[in-house]
Amino acid sequence: MSTTPAFTGVIPPVITPRTSDGALDLPGLEAVVEHLVSGGMHGLFPLGSSGETPYLTDAERAEVLATVASATAGRVPLLVGANEQTTARVIEEARKVASRGADAVVVTTPYYAIFDATEVKRHFRAVAAAVDVPVLAYDVPVRTHFKLAPGLLAELAHEGTIAGVKDSSGNDIAFRQLRLLTRGLEGFALFSGHEVVCDAAMLSGADGLVPGLANVDPAGYRRLYDAAVSGNWETAVKEQDRLAELFRIVDVPDGSRVSPGAGGLGAFKTALAELGVIGANTMSRPMESLNAAEATEIRAILSATGLL
Amino acid sequence: MSTTPAFTGVIPPVITPRTSDGALDLPGLEAVVEHLVSGGMHGLFPLGSSGETPYLTDAERAEVLATVASATAGRVPLLVGANEQTTARVIEEARKVASRGADAVVVTTPYYAIFDATEVKRHFRAVAAAVDVPVLAYDVPVRTHFKLAPGLLAELAHEGTIAGVKDSSGNDIAFRQLRLLTRGLEGFALFSGHEVVCDAAMLSGADGLVPGLANVDPAGYRRLYDAAVSGNWETAVKEQDRLAELFRIVDVPDGSRVSPGAGGLGAFKTALAELGVIGANTMSRPMESLNAAEATEIRAILSATGLL
Amino acid sequence: MSTTPAFTGVIPPVITPRTSDGALDLPGLEAVVEHLVSGGMHGLFPLGSSGETPYLTDAERAEVLATVASATAGRVPLLVGANEQTTARVIEEARKVASRGADAVVVTTPYYAIFDATEVKRHFRAVAAAVDVPVLAYDVPVRTHFKLAPGLLAELAHEGTIAGVKDSSGNDIAFRQLRLLTRGLEGFALFSGHEVVCDAAMLSGADGLVPGLANVDPAGYRRLYDAAVSGNWETAVKEQDRLAELFRIVDVPDGSRVSPGAGGLGAFKTALAELGVIGANTMSRPMESLNAAEATEIRAILSATGLL
Amino acid sequence: MSTTPAFTGVIPPVITPRTSDGALDLPGLEAVVEHLVSGGMHGLFPLGSSGETPYLTDAERAEVLATVASATAGRVPLLVGANEQTTARVIEEARKVASRGADAVVVTTPYYAIFDATEVKRHFRAVAAAVDVPVLAYDVPVRTHFKLAPGLLAELAHEGTIAGVKDSSGNDIAFRQLRLLTRGLEGFALFSGHEVVCDAAMLSGADGLVPGLANVDPAGYRRLYDAAVSGNWETAVKEQDRLAELFRIVDVPDGSRVSPGAGGLGAFKTALAELGVIGANTMSRPMESLNAAEATEIRAILSATGLL
Repeated sequence: MSTTPAFTGVIPPVITPRTSDGALDLPGLEAVVEHLVSGGMHGLFPLGSSGETPYLTDAERAEVLATVASATAGRVPLLVGANEQTTARVIEEARKVASRGADAVVVTTPYYAIFDATEVKRHFRAVAAAVDVPVLAYDVPVRTHFKLAPGLLAELAHEGTIAGVKDSSGNDIAFRQLRLLTRGLEGFALFSGHEVVCDAAMLSGADGLVPGLANVDPAGYRRLYDAAVSGNWETAVKEQDRLAELFRIVDVPDGSRVSPGAGGLGAFKTALAELGVIGANTMSRPMESLNAAEATEIRAILSATGLL
Repeated sequence: MSTTPAFTGVIPPVITPRTSDGALDLPGLEAVVEHLVSGGMHGLFPLGSSGETPYLTDAERAEVLATVASATAGRVPLLVGANEQTTARVIEEARKVASRGADAVVVTTPYYAIFDATEVKRHFRAVAAAVDVPVLAYDVPVRTHFKLAPGLLAELAHEGTIAGVKDSSGNDIAFRQLRLLTRGLEGFALFSGHEVVCDAAMLSGADGLVPGLANVDPAGYRRLYDAAVSGNWETAVKEQDRLAELFRIVDVPDGSRVSPGAGGLGAFKTALAELGVIGANTMSRPMESLNAAEATEIRAILSATGLL
Repeated sequence: MSTTPAFTGVIPPVITPRTSDGALDLPGLEAVVEHLVSGGMHGLFPLGSSGETPYLTDAERAEVLATVASATAGRVPLLVGANEQTTARVIEEARKVASRGADAVVVTTPYYAIFDATEVKRHFRAVAAAVDVPVLAYDVPVRTHFKLAPGLLAELAHEGTIAGVKDSSGNDIAFRQLRLLTRGLEGFALFSGHEVVCDAAMLSGADGLVPGLANVDPAGYRRLYDAAVSGNWETAVKEQDRLAELFRIVDVPDGSRVSPGAGGLGAFKTALAELGVIGANTMSRPMESLNAAEATEIRAILSATGLL
Repeated sequence: MSTTPAFTGVIPPVITPRTSDGALDLPGLEAVVEHLVSGGMHGLFPLGSSGETPYLTDAERAEVLATVASATAGRVPLLVGANEQTTARVIEEARKVASRGADAVVVTTPYYAIFDATEVKRHFRAVAAAVDVPVLAYDVPVRTHFKLAPGLLAELAHEGTIAGVKDSSGNDIAFRQLRLLTRGLEGFALFSGHEVVCDAAMLSGADGLVPGLANVDPAGYRRLYDAAVSGNWETAVKEQDRLAELFRIVDVPDGSRVSPGAGGLGAFKTALAELGVIGANTMSRPMESLNAAEATEIRAILSATGLL
């Protein structure tokens, strides 16, 4: 009997391109998928935060997932976000994405709702009972305003409710504690969602990585991951440091014009446009897109880090 | 030309009863509407937070609004929540509720999304441009984690984007500042959503009240409002103090078993069940319902405050 | 046996003037005291937040209190801040100020320390046991990052540990609940520390007011208080609205140059300088003082509100 | 010219023992110093948070530092906390500890005060200008409620204001960014203050470690550090995992009786008492000490991790 988790490796959250008039750019999305799969990604995570999923209408979500599933064509597994605010609504969303090709669903705590840890457990148990695919917990307190404690996650993992955690909490201490509490647990995978500490996350025992920046440089994150898995930490650190330089693209947007949410994702989109993968860097409304001056700065960082 | 705002008076957020098996209790909802209209309410606010709207599926939301609209039968206006997390999704929701009988829609800032004040303005402007009914801003930072600043709201009010504000921010200072910035503004109404400071809100210049507790004692809030409007502050304070005693029902639930969100709404539902208006105090999952011991305590408070 | 609390009325936190070279301006402080006492204040609160006490060295604190005590000469009582971060240090500070003329000491929860409600109770009990003057609790979560719950304060009040509360929490709901829990309690006084909702605080049952802005316009706050006490709410609201206009001086400082802490107090000092009460508007370091352009704007507001 | 920072290695914050009647236990403190120096520590950090410094009176602080300085007898350098809330008060405190033997002072941002980034820079510059020893910035937002941004710290580092940073922010992303912004900077040292991610911190480029848990197991942290410095990451991780097990002593205290602040430090003290280094686990008031049942649980963890 293996103790390999169901999913490992680099599984980036897939961005959602739009044409300059704001419509979904489905050919562009297919190009992003190809860029990622050919860049060595072990899986894809559509309908995540980096996919601007909170901003997509129901119809757009359906189109995005259909396009990603079709373009991926089963080459790698799809972990898919089921982004809704409470249990019954998450279940409806999770069933939809499962029926559209998700190999697993990624689910947050409730939000907007006012809840506590006991409700969170009932929430994940109800979702897991309602869908036929594995459920991963997505810990993103900057959005949900609730940190999933290591003990709570370990309880859900050991009872079989969740098959993994995507940690975007920025709390490396809790991440390590969760790893210690779940080490060797059959079928459970721990992912870090932070771009600039992937080497440290791997040293701490992560099973995989979900970095938004891998949209821009999938091969770089693949090299980092492979180096870490083979214990070549010097190489992993060196690659991480280069990727941390690349991550400075998110500091380029002018904060007086572009919100924090729009700036980071806008930088990813702008970089992909500069790399020729997609045609425009348009953001979902009400987010502001990056302008030409910002694109020029991002182009310089792409050059300095060897991508152009 | 009048400077009367479009909506004034006591306009309670309508609770959403469920039968003991968890289904919507539509006859119970009709009874609640009758209880409220006959209790002297100036309007009704279905699909608000007190209506457990975050927990309702799309189909349930449609049923609730249809039932409230039918039961109200035009006797008072309907302000209806359009509870979604970002602009495009709010617009779809707002159009739905407008088509189903809303006289105005009540809209929060984005949530889950990471945004800033500039995006908030674009958000409200886009929603207002997309629907044919007035838009009220709902300021509820305990849920959205963003406080709408008085200056921002005043700007949206003066340009005609919003027709009112429901303030549930717990910030009486900002409330007063907003009142000073909007005094005499044609067609703009300022509502307080807090149960125990309605007298003070009226003294500060509120146009109306949106207290969840008015589900339990609509006539009490009507007396408070009428006393305040006629400058009879001694009576208003006395009525408010009694209602504050009644509001202690929200402290009854055991916090180790019932979450803060479930406790407050569960107390309202339990009180309505004890009063015979509805048949059960069942909460939407994953929220816990109040138990028999808690119902007994609530019954005692209802007696002590003259409702039983 | 009377149920009058020990202290009532308007008791402003006294600002601490500095000369343009940054030294304490003790003659200026005497002038402020005279301005306040002759303006009808019922007591004075030196060494509070508005006195820049967090920024004063121990030697400066001693000088300030000696000067205020001497200038007041017993005409009104002195409530004095004992501003320290933990129990043993507060006790030392409280004993010092008691020995220097305080009629009562005003004490916050611990800060910087990481604590809980149980420790907070032990804290106040230990301080009260260690000093011979009444202890008032100062609830200022924007500084301490801990809100004193109404139930906790009521427990300390009923057991005789605290003789009052200065509420600067911005939470009018908790304020009202505390009032209901302490109504008629012998020797206990409830004060509001917020400038623009004093009328509402009085309607809610406050015993007194501690507005920093009363440094600028003591007579205005006295008129507001007297009107409220005599049930003349129309006058109280009108006076409050004028004072709210005056309070806009705190919005004058340029936030890119002056911190939020420095801006509000700097506006009070600048207004007092423009009124001729003190000679300079210099702030304690590292706070930035307001500049000439800002002084001109403040002067205009003083004129518009009838003070110049 | 070397680029070695002034301080490197493991430099634990020294706990402050008390006898069972609450007095300072100076012989116990000498024993702790001996335990740490003989355990291979590269320096000592008295008057830090783990030393309960916020709770010490001025007289106690003087006694603690004199005792540590005397017991250390120059064998390793002393980094000493100057724990005060604003600039002028920090300067007085920093001068005191410098005169009593500090080789460097460790300084936070202001607290209780309401400030901004501009004031923070003035604060550190004023302190550095006022003392003759190097100043290290201590980033501890759980106490100060202000996170020192990497860019701000890098600016202070490059201009020579600060000689290092002790990071207790729990933000590994910002830690990595600060490292990239200061790599190779002459005389600047970056320390991590977190017990369970020291291996990852070293991989990320830390110059040293300031773990409170090193009071209990200095030799373990020395082995971890030495393994990391020599690139033996497998050993470092293994040692870290054992120390993470040891760190579970902080989860032993009953949170309904012991506050979060008291629980962690109380566990360290209890472990040292069980190890026979000190005689009692008494905490500074108002903190609760751990009881016999908790001590028994801690003893079991000490055994399981090889310390007993």
